[in-house]
Amino acid sequence: MPRDPKYDILFEPIQLGPKTLKNRFYQVPHCIGAGSEKPGMQAYHRGMKAEGGWGACCTEYCSIHPESDDTSRVSARIWDDGDVRNLAAMCDRLHQFGALAGIELWYGGPHAPCMESRATPRGPSQIASDFELNIFPRYMDQDDIDTVQQMYVDAAIRAREAGFDIVYVYGAHAYLPFQFLSPFYNRRTDKYGGSFENRARFWRESLYKVREAVGDDCAIASRFAVDHLLGPVSIQVGEDGARFVEYCDDLVDLWDFTVGDIAEWGQNAGPSRFFEENHEKPYTGQIKAGNHTNKPVVGVGRITNPDTMIAIINSGQFDIIGAARPSISDPFLPKKIEEGRLEDIRECIGCNQCISRWEIGGPPMVCTQNATAGEEYRRGWHPEKFHPAANRDKGVLVIGAGPAGMECAMVLGKRDMSAVHLVEGAKQIGGSVNWISKMGHSDGKPNLFRGQARGLGEWSRIVNYRQIQLDKLSNVEVHLNSELTADQVFDYGAEIVVVATGCHFATDGLNAATHEPIEGADASLDWQMTPDQVVAESKTIGKRVLVLENEAYFMGVSVAQKLAGEGHEVHLVTQAADIAKYMDYTLEAPMLHRDLHRLGVHVHTQTMLEKIEPGVCHAYNVWDPRHKEAIEVDSVVLATARLSDDGLYRELKADKVRLAQEGIEALYLIGDAAAPRMIVDSIFDGHRLAREIDSPHPEMPLPFIRERRLWGESTNDDYRSQLLNTPDVAVV
Amino acid sequence: MPRDPKYDILFEPIQLGPKTLKNRFYQVPHCIGAGSEKPGMQAYHRGMKAEGGWGACCTEYCSIHPESDDTSRVSARIWDDGDVRNLAAMCDRLHQFGALAGIELWYGGPHAPCMESRATPRGPSQIASDFELNIFPRYMDQDDIDTVQQMYVDAAIRAREAGFDIVYVYGAHAYLPFQFLSPFYNRRTDKYGGSFENRARFWRESLYKVREAVGDDCAIASRFAVDHLLGPVSIQVGEDGARFVEYCDDLVDLWDFTVGDIAEWGQNAGPSRFFEENHEKPYTGQIKAGNHTNKPVVGVGRITNPDTMIAIINSGQFDIIGAARPSISDPFLPKKIEEGRLEDIRECIGCNQCISRWEIGGPPMVCTQNATAGEEYRRGWHPEKFHPAANRDKGVLVIGAGPAGMECAMVLGKRDMSAVHLVEGAKQIGGSVNWISKMGHSDGKPNLFRGQARGLGEWSRIVNYRQIQLDKLSNVEVHLNSELTADQVFDYGAEIVVVATGCHFATDGLNAATHEPIEGADASLDWQMTPDQVVAESKTIGKRVLVLENEAYFMGVSVAQKLAGEGHEVHLVTQAADIAKYMDYTLEAPMLHRDLHRLGVHVHTQTMLEKIEPGVCHAYNVWDPRHKEAIEVDSVVLATARLSDDGLYRELKADKVRLAQEGIEALYLIGDAAAPRMIVDSIFDGHRLAREIDSPHPEMPLPFIRERRLWGESTNDDYRSQLLNTPDVAVV
Repeated sequence: MPRDPKYDILFEPIQLGPKTLKNRFYQVPHCIGAGSEKPGMQAYHRGMKAEGGWGACCTEYCSIHPESDDTSRVSARIWDDGDVRNLAAMCDRLHQFGALAGIELWYGGPHAPCMESRATPRGPSQIASDFELNIFPRYMDQDDIDTVQQMYVDAAIRAREAGFDIVYVYGAHAYLPFQFLSPFYNRRTDKYGGSFENRARFWRESLYKVREAVGDDCAIASRFAVDHLLGPVSIQVGEDGARFVEYCDDLVDLWDFTVGDIAEWGQNAGPSRFFEENHEKPYTGQIKAGNHTNKPVVGVGRITNPDTMIAIINSGQFDIIGAARPSISDPFLPKKIEEGRLEDIRECIGCNQCISRWEIGGPPMVCTQNATAGEEYRRGWHPEKFHPAANRDKGVLVIGAGPAGMECAMVLGKRDMSAVHLVEGAKQIGGSVNWISKMGHSDGKPNLFRGQARGLGEWSRIVNYRQIQLDKLSNVEVHLNSELTADQVFDYGAEIVVVATGCHFATDGLNAATHEPIEGADASLDWQMTPDQVVAESKTIGKRVLVLENEAYFMGVSVAQKLAGEGHEVHLVTQAADIAKYMDYTLEAPMLHRDLHRLGVHVHTQTMLEKIEPGVCHAYNVWDPRHKEAIEVDSVVLATARLSDDGLYRELKADKVRLAQEGIEALYLIGDAAAPRMIVDSIFDGHRLAREIDSPHPEMPLPFIRERRLWGESTNDDYRSQLLNTPDVAVV
Repeated sequence: MPRDPKYDILFEPIQLGPKTLKNRFYQVPHCIGAGSEKPGMQAYHRGMKAEGGWGACCTEYCSIHPESDDTSRVSARIWDDGDVRNLAAMCDRLHQFGALAGIELWYGGPHAPCMESRATPRGPSQIASDFELNIFPRYMDQDDIDTVQQMYVDAAIRAREAGFDIVYVYGAHAYLPFQFLSPFYNRRTDKYGGSFENRARFWRESLYKVREAVGDDCAIASRFAVDHLLGPVSIQVGEDGARFVEYCDDLVDLWDFTVGDIAEWGQNAGPSRFFEENHEKPYTGQIKAGNHTNKPVVGVGRITNPDTMIAIINSGQFDIIGAARPSISDPFLPKKIEEGRLEDIRECIGCNQCISRWEIGGPPMVCTQNATAGEEYRRGWHPEKFHPAANRDKGVLVIGAGPAGMECAMVLGKRDMSAVHLVEGAKQIGGSVNWISKMGHSDGKPNLFRGQARGLGEWSRIVNYRQIQLDKLSNVEVHLNSELTADQVFDYGAEIVVVATGCHFATDGLNAATHEPIEGADASLDWQMTPDQVVAESKTIGKRVLVLENEAYFMGVSVAQKLAGEGHEVHLVTQAADIAKYMDYTLEAPMLHRDLHRLGVHVHTQTMLEKIEPGVCHAYNVWDPRHKEAIEVDSVVLATARLSDDGLYRELKADKVRLAQEGIEALYLIGDAAAPRMIVDSIFDGHRLAREIDSPHPEMPLPFIRERRLWGESTNDDYRSQLLNTPDVAVV
């Protein structure tokens, strides 16, 4: 089906200085865990998007010098010839598909802890980072300013050599150029501080010098947070925000607008739990609306809906649709619009699992919706292409249509298996996603700061996408309302059986902290319950509720939020130093804290329960169990351990004779039924098995390419290699 | 001077199965951030210790399979031929110096989050990790047990191929074999659970299989926590601890004993703040004392004193002196004992900066005492050998004898500069270390759990070592009680001037959280003070004290601890979710929490001060500044920002004409005077400048070798490389 002509505007080219962007789809800089050290991952991940129709793809933030080193987090780097060689692989791959390659030149100032290089970062004024722990910059005098600006120039020249088409001077997320611009960081009294022109001077000069160096060959871009969201102490869009755009408009070929900073960058990379699509419009939308620029503008906002995209362009908000997360979730988003296959778009759910890995530092990116993200090179996976399975004559029975089962059956279908039956006990597919996507609401009122509790409704896209794909696959049958016994499985007639029966909450308070149940915990009682029971509203909940959260992710806090929003008096108890640690990594934590604080939830950290009695929970401090507290409540919610529902698998596996008799050649256990994990893990697990269903030992993942130095091969670091060959001389 | 014969016993060889350890110095497995991905760092760091006399050096924990993947932390790996090649570089380097090479085969179970491999870890029972967030293992049935045991065997065979002499089955720190042994993790009802023999079965079988595979060629070792320190719910030395040693004694050639687990492994890698030298003796000492083993035993305890070492061996506690941190701090510790140069030993201070980098995940190890640790390969630095500087005819004036200045002057001296003057305003060298080493005490009473607040006294070793070295250097003069003016510096006659004048605390409450001073904050008043003033006891402190801690390391909490120990009623206020976050990384946090809790310190997290008035501090919640609290206090301590004392440097630098006139060819700024950092950073900064004082631009660090893949070179992953060359086929 051809595309609707209303979307034609998305496919119009646009000029960016000396370069032509072929359409309006633009992958803005975002992290993936590749940097310059994993050139294959970098080239193939970005290249997949180019293949999928994105007109330009950028690196993540790319350090210009070792004194801007973000280790343990993974940035790209363009420090030397080795980096040029490695990043050229990305440029080459993008160019093969007709996409432009962008590089985001980055100097972090005090936000760069330099744990690998051990250098001292420089900054406009000596104020410690509000993001890092205890990192103070060296005050930059005029020599330092000249030196760092030359670093930008040198990096830009190397970038051109690598083949980049678009060169950024990156100032968003409160990195160095923004630190000069903002009075929150800049307390200088020289010509780089004080007045607007003085504060803007560093950025303008840097743009000028980079433009002079490479502007004839490369488009010059700048990423700018039009509003710091800190109010009058920093940049506001109606004041210096718009003014800065006007002031430097002559020096850029492309503006890339964001909001906020790095200390709370969930205001920019807004999780769906708190932010809707195109949530930055109230800020970024003011620039073109106010005629503050004559240059093309790109911006983001988790934009996955093609109608939102054309509204954005037609309304004059942006000229180009920027995407980070939507391009990870679906690298083929542009192609699917172009080909009129809107129903095939795999929309980002805004869970921010991708971001969590950058925050954790080091691990490769993951994506809940797209299990192939980050796997393009090292496992050779393509999100839209599938090898027919060598054993596709086999019939496969997949038991359980939760995240792992849905994904596995879908991929098996796409791999052309002769028959795949996905059998589910419930009346719909989706498993735990069906009730989890009903969580995360409170009373609907906005927080003091931006964002409000919208709930996890967008997570239901996990199910929607797979439902549509399964419906299209003629070789996959979905059977609902069918709970299979072991006998029925034996008799089913499938050669391959995949068990994906999920997990359940412990009802006795078993938890990771003590490894034991809790005395008196019993979710079979009418005043105690597990989180799924709360969402199902299967029990009456009293006025005063205690929620015990031991898992450190969204479960317990979501229950607390919902109940507090409904007017309950809520006590949230955790053994940890803070609630829901993993939500720090997904950038949901600040808004969550604000919501719980606003709702008056009583948070008891470093606290565990030793005993639950009707009307009262007996708690103790984890640093001194003799230190006790009695919390009077009417109801108790146990967001404690989960346990795999692997009974069917164990029963099948125990009868090896009958497995053989019935012609069941292979039996696999996947997803939460193997081990309760996050949804992103379960989907990956199902996908991985289906991708490798015809490998020698499908139960064991095949090896993946590890991009590493091998001893004896070059590191391209000649200076130090020579040094090592110089004999040491003992002086003392 | 020859060594004292009483130390001869340390140099006696000892048999470990088929291998001979040449002396009693043994670097136990410890992390450095190299793993198998940075083979040069791995080989040269361990090799430096071999050169320094250690009889054996081990890898860090070494994963046996991708389903035990500790990313984002850095372990070694022996998964494939590429790892064999990379780890062989380490073995070769050790063998050059006559040392044995050990490898610690590791399977983490639920403590391995598998964020790179994305595999599902397996474990004895399905209980989530008490260390990781929300990681549940897959329950191991008999097939799983066989599979994982085969992973150990395969890894051991690869280890032998790489050249390792000692092969560990690693069970300490609550990793897989220990998980089977301990009822805290093991709830099985089959032959691997329940009775002692059943719980020990997995470990014993694994040892047996590994021994069968490589035991003729390699010594078989096992690292075992003789006491989990959790009481009767787990392994206690007097019960199953000793019993396990007896039970498996026939299968090992070497026991490596520790205590505790991974969730609180500061009980093992005890920081000096809470643990004295050889602090594990009450536990590990029981094994040989009780005649539970006939095999050689190695153990640790931050042992740096040669007299402690001989006491340990002569008393029969251990046969071999194990070291992790002391071997990092001084790779030449054995040589220095051997050569009778005890005064040259650079003793570990127990600050655990080395460990902090593992905890953070990713960055290379650092050492406060030894700036060359981790730099042996990538920068070519040797801790005991120094190139004479090309410009050694120059005279150098180093102003300020704090950590950076002391280190810089010492290294310049060792580099044979003709004259180095280290000029210090105070009456002794050491700078901030002199008062910091008086911190960290409370009331001297033990905590409920192990460890008690001993203070930071061992940190004074930073000064002691450098004092001794400076005293030996005839080309270095130290001038105390000399505060130099700019005029005096101009007139001094040195061609090279290094300014290392340190930093001071902000007196107005300037802080990283708000970037602003605090209204009413003024440490010039007699009831407000900075941490150094508290230690100096220059002011009278009232009964009720508020300590504002915004730096997230030891400063504010140490003050709170001291004052609470002296009987003050202390309020500790921080903007963060928890106090002293960096002390999580140094493993000091749990003991600190216990001490503060015991002392009744009132902790206010997520709280900042908006105003300080006599008698009352006005605080607000960071999630809603409208939410206020008045805290009535008599005194206030401001552990807020630090600011460089760079006035002298700025004054000198401003007068370029006079610099030239006076023949000052170079002017450098180092340490806290450039940017307030941790002591480890300041010492590195001073060392780095001295190492590179004759480079083309000494103010800029020279590049270091980055061990990375270069695009186009091999990754040794043939399977996936082939896959990438297979054209994809679109099915749907």
